[in-house]
Parts: sequence; structure tokens; C-alpha cells
Amino acid sequence: LDKYAFVDHFVQKNALPHKEMASAFAKTNIALVKYWGKRNRELNLPVTSSLSVSLPVGTYTTLTIGENGSDEVFVSGKKVDTESVFYKRTTSFLDLFRPKNFFFTVETKNDLPTGAGLASSASGFAALVLALQKLFNWSLDKKALSMLARLGSGSSARSLYDGFAIWHKGSQENGLDSFAEKIDATWPELRMGLWILSEDEKKIDSKNAMIQTTQTSFLYKAWPEQVANDLEKMHEAIQNSDFTLLGTTAEHNALSMHATMLSSAPSICYFLPESIRGIQKIHDIRKQGYEVYCTMDAGPNIKVLFLEKDRMAIQNEIPELMVLEPFRQGSDEINYAE
Amino acid sequence: LDKYAFVDHFVQKNALPHKEMASAFAKTNIALVKYWGKRNRELNLPVTSSLSVSLPVGTYTTLTIGENGSDEVFVSGKKVDTESVFYKRTTSFLDLFRPKNFFFTVETKNDLPTGAGLASSASGFAALVLALQKLFNWSLDKKALSMLARLGSGSSARSLYDGFAIWHKGSQENGLDSFAEKIDATWPELRMGLWILSEDEKKIDSKNAMIQTTQTSFLYKAWPEQVANDLEKMHEAIQNSDFTLLGTTAEHNALSMHATMLSSAPSICYFLPESIRGIQKIHDIRKQGYEVYCTMDAGPNIKVLFLEKDRMAIQNEIPELMVLEPFRQGSDEINYAE
Repeated sequence: LDKYAFVDHFVQKNALPHKEMASAFAKTNIALVKYWGKRNRELNLPVTSSLSVSLPVGTYTTLTIGENGSDEVFVSGKKVDTESVFYKRTTSFLDLFRPKNFFFTVETKNDLPTGAGLASSASGFAALVLALQKLFNWSLDKKALSMLARLGSGSSARSLYDGFAIWHKGSQENGLDSFAEKIDATWPELRMGLWILSEDEKKIDSKNAMIQTTQTSFLYKAWPEQVANDLEKMHEAIQNSDFTLLGTTAEHNALSMHATMLSSAPSICYFLPESIRGIQKIHDIRKQGYEVYCTMDAGPNIKVLFLEKDRMAIQNEIPELMVLEPFRQGSDEINYAE
Repeated sequence: LDKYAFVDHFVQKNALPHKEMASAFAKTNIALVKYWGKRNRELNLPVTSSLSVSLPVGTYTTLTIGENGSDEVFVSGKKVDTESVFYKRTTSFLDLFRPKNFFFTVETKNDLPTGAGLASSASGFAALVLALQKLFNWSLDKKALSMLARLGSGSSARSLYDGFAIWHKGSQENGLDSFAEKIDATWPELRMGLWILSEDEKKIDSKNAMIQTTQTSFLYKAWPEQVANDLEKMHEAIQNSDFTLLGTTAEHNALSMHATMLSSAPSICYFLPESIRGIQKIHDIRKQGYEVYCTMDAGPNIKVLFLEKDRMAIQNEIPELMVLEPFRQGSDEINYAE
């Protein structure tokens, strides 16, 4: 089964009528239990389930039916080179849904810098799928949309939702049971601080890093068992608003994911010297008695987890922190703003 | 079976006559396939076998029969506090061999700084056992001595030998098949550069770090399988003088050991920011076409593996490197110098 046949389960490519233009916004999500490793690359099926929280920042995308004989892609108003990875990844995703002789103009902008492990591809493909749904008047539910977004970037399945979301790994080979859904819980006091240590592009993208890890790391063999354990703890932490359990589990999970990379051959290390200093700083603040934990994705930057009551102390220690409120009032509606 | 009963297999504690004084030297060894995790703490039995190369630096120890009612320990001529970990570890090791009403004066000096992952406890306990053998006129072979040294510090079993050595994990519960032996091979061109990034004492000693790893890391479950694989490759590399295989295997093994620590809960990170910068530097030099690899023990410092032909280039890139020649002519005899 290939991507094209998978998409045929959900939409007809010759579907008309369509709008001339549609816009959508999708949130960035940060995994608290990480996605690392694919069991099927064509359909982007993961080895494990993963669990995230969405942030009130993300990607805004406008799709317009183009008149030219090719797609045009703009990021922050700047035309993207047709030879770039970004252009190719965007347009080959659009190919999955493209009616004959259709071309698109894609205008997109991110709140956060791209390529630095800040999940812009997750919100990017989710926004693109939401814009496609409007453009072609689909009436797919979020579960279906999450499976379509998954084909662009696995973690974008979780970006369809506000708050906590889980992406089920599924077990079928056809990929129809690997979708994301919302976890029904709120946690108004939860804070996520973004500590941007480098905005440089990564040396190895997460897709290739995953392949290298799954193919060469012995330690990776034990990763699915850890994820299963961490997911159980994370559900418990969310249901009971147990921040200590949430923080320790998220930090253990993230550093273990980086451990699987470090144990690859050759080794993959997303840590910069500043990352090590940052993790040490988090641990030092924790020793002072503030509950603060970190998580890291496939990049050098640190995401800092804490509760509103400790915000002042933590911002005092890390003045460059960009503090986001995952459950901020009103951030639910922004998803459908046009 | 406890340590005392184990020692009774080899020596009699009331053995007389004895000398009044004896000195010995033992070499530092650096594992190319690491020892990480015990299956039996009392007898210091490891989860896996390990393989090392000895260096022409180490520990000099002189034992004298003391007149006082307690042991005295001197490091580099300075008397060690009786409340210190070093004093307690040394004297409780001597307890295993102490005839009734016997007290020792221990004078020891290391070529390398202690406690910074530079294996001074390995050469230390090996030198102590060699000195005890002379003092009490034992006539144990190195295999037996390696098992006695193991009770003080696991990796000291390998410090009884010059060149390459393997410490067999053994499988018996009585610990009598967990010994080290020499690997019959020389490699005159092999170089080990010590890159000392910090001489600070470690925050967590390797004994406790091992316990924390084996008890809390999921990824550690896959470690024994990796070690078995790496040992096979390392034997092949040594027999064929295949430096690429030796270097890639040593680096993969060491970074995977650190990965098991990183995946502990709480996480154990011996990397300093400088360590990350150092590993990156090694990788950059390799990209220039020089065959250079790193290994790291339970500390922040880096050991650099290369061949004599690339020595100038590598010393040029890392001027602070202390270059040692494991198979230097004459370094075989130093072991018995008095």
C-alpha cells in the first residue's frame, strides 16, 4: 500500500466544486512521550505511540489555486527555491491530493524558527491539511485529518488538537488505525518555556536520524518497552494533575530518546555544549526546590516544564526563556480563525 | 559467599613469614569495550566481559608493616584523612588480607589525577594486590591476582597485564571464573591521547552510577547484547590490526555506555559542555581524513585513539593532548620495578 492508495480511502482527487482560496492555522506540539522510529516509512507508521501538548504558537497557511503550470511556495512572504528540500517536501505532499492540472500557491508563516527541533513541520503539515479540507470542502473528522497530516510528518498528526493529544501507533499494515486523538484534560497552570540555544539548521534531519537509530542502535531495542511504561505514567500524571510524575517522566523519556541516538553508529548527537550547560542549569534550579523539568526534541534546544507558581523564580534564573501557556483561555478557538 | 570467604580460596591470612616492606607498580588500563554494571556487588562480578589496553602510566604503591594500632594511608606523600572515602576503601580492601593485629602503612602515588575517570582506582588496587603478594610471599598467578584485585575495583582485574587484556564476566555465582587475562597481540603503532578537560572529582562515583543505571534504565537491558557484539569485533580488530574496526567499535561502545547512563532516572550525565565540544572536534578531524576515534569513561575526559602516522596532525589540532604509547619498548618490564 502506498501513500496515494492510502489517501484514496479518505478523499477523491477530482472533487469539485472547490474554493479559490483557504487559510488555516495549526498549533505546534511538543511531545512529552516522544515519537522516535518508524515501522513503515511509506505510510509514516511509528514504532511506538506518543503523547504531546500543543502550544499557542504554530503555523498559518493560505492555499490558493494557482494559474501557473507549477506550485509556488512562500515562507514569511519569501519565495522558496524549487530545488529546496522545503519546496519538494511541500509539493510532493500536495501531489497526494492534487486533482489533474491543479497547481497551488502556498503561503505559510511560522511563529517559531524552522529546522531547530521546534516542531515547525508538525504544525506546518497540520495547517496544510486543514487548509486543503477547506479548499476542497471535505468534511473529514480530525481523526481522519490526523492520518492525512501524518503522511507529511508523523508528529503533525498530534498538531490537529489543542491541549494533550495521543498518537496511537496502531498495529495494522494499512495504516488506518494509526491516528491521533485529544486527551480530555486541561491543566491551566502548566507552562512550557522555550529555551532557544541555536537557530541553526540541524546537521541531520530527524527522518534520517530515526533511520540511523533504528538500524544501528542496540539500545533502541529496549525503547518500545520504555515508551509503553512512560505512556502509562503520563496518562496517570495528566489524570491526577501530578506534576512531579509528568516532569520526571517527560525528562526521562526525552533524555532516553537522545540516548538511543547517541548509541547509534555513527553516533548522533543533537546536544550542543550549551545544551549540556542548560540541562545542568535545570537540575541546579530543581535542587533549589523549584519543580522544573526539561524535554528536548531532535535539536539542541531545551523545552522547560514548570507550573505558574514557579514562573517568576524560573524566569529569573533563565531570563531568555520564552514562556508559553498551553491551556491559555481563548487559544482553543484560534484553530479555526480565518 | 562473601568477599572474605572468596579470599580464603587463594590465601591464608595468618601466612608467615612476611617481609617488612614491599613495593609494586601497576598500569592504568582504558577499556575499549567497557565494563558497566555488576551482577553481584559483593564479589564485584560484572554483567558483561570487557576488554582494555594498558598504558605506560599507573600507580606506585609501597606497603609497610605498621607499628600503630591502625592503618595509615599516604597519597603523593600526603596523609589521607581516616574519614575519607579513599581511606575507607583502601583499608577495607586490606581487611580482606589482614592477619590478626596487623596494620599497614600504604604509600601510593598516581601518574594521573584521581577521580576524573582516568582509571586510577584500577591501577591502584592492582598495585596494592601486587604489593601484598610480595609482602606475604604469595605465589599466585596473574589470573588469581586479577580476581583478588577485582574485589577492590572491577576494572583493576585488567590492570595486572600489559597490552590488551580481557576480563571474562564468568557465569558461576562463586566468582571463581571471573578473571582477566592477557590477549596475545601487540600493536606498536597504536596511540592513546589523554585529553583532560576537567580534574574535578566526579559528582557521582562509578559504583553508584552503575547501580542507578542497572536499576532504572530501560535501555540498559539491550547493553549486554551490544557488548557481546562489540567484543567479537574488537577481537577481530586486534587480530587483524584493523584500526578502523578498533576505533569505530570503541567509540560506539563508549558512547553507548554513556547513553545507558543518560537514560537512567534520574539521568546521569558525565558530559561537560567541553566534552561535547571535544567529541565534535574528534569528528571534525576525522572528516579531514585522519583516522581518529574517542572513548570516554565515567568522567568528562576524552581518550583519543589514533596511529603513530597521524600523530603530528592530531597533536596540531589538539595541542593539549597527552600522547601515550601502550606498546612502547621497555614498558613491559616496569611492572616489576621496585
